[in-house]
Amino acid sequence: MKVTVVINRRPEIADPEGTTVRRALHELGFTEVAEVRMDRVIHLDVDDDDQDRVRDRVDVMCSRLLANPVLEDYLVVLG
Amino acid sequence: MKVTVVINRRPEIADPEGTTVRRALHELGFTEVAEVRMDRVIHLDVDDDDQDRVRDRVDVMCSRLLANPVLEDYLVVLG
Repeated sequence: MKVTVVINRRPEIADPEGTTVRRALHELGFTEVAEVRMDRVIHLDVDDDDQDRVRDRVDVMCSRLLANPVLEDYLVVLG
Repeated sequence: MKVTVVINRRPEIADPEGTTVRRALHELGFTEVAEVRMDRVIHLDVDDDDQDRVRDRVDVMCSRLLANPVLEDYLVVLG
């Protein structure tokens, strides 16, 4: 089963990578870029077709490894 | 104008970050994960409402800074 996990920093948490990219874009002349935020998308190919179990297991993967629950929110999309 | 750029490694290009995450998941017991691939999503807030110009400028940003055109494909979504 294909699973997509979208991970984004919580809106109230600063995004230092995005800030760095914005600064680099400004240095290249793209001064119209007011804000940059970066998300991560993780595509998993899981050898299991039990949707409930996959959702539960991916949720544990996110909290243990894939996401930082202090700084980030995540969304799990099956299929 | 809000712009979203989705950047993914070309399918034929190995994804070492994904391979590392898969190995870590296996070490944590998630051996059902057969493959992991990572994409990046960049959200830009651009101070410009001219769609054609924004698309052209973001395309240049991608090729100059945001994406690696040798390894990655990117998709620009306006609005």
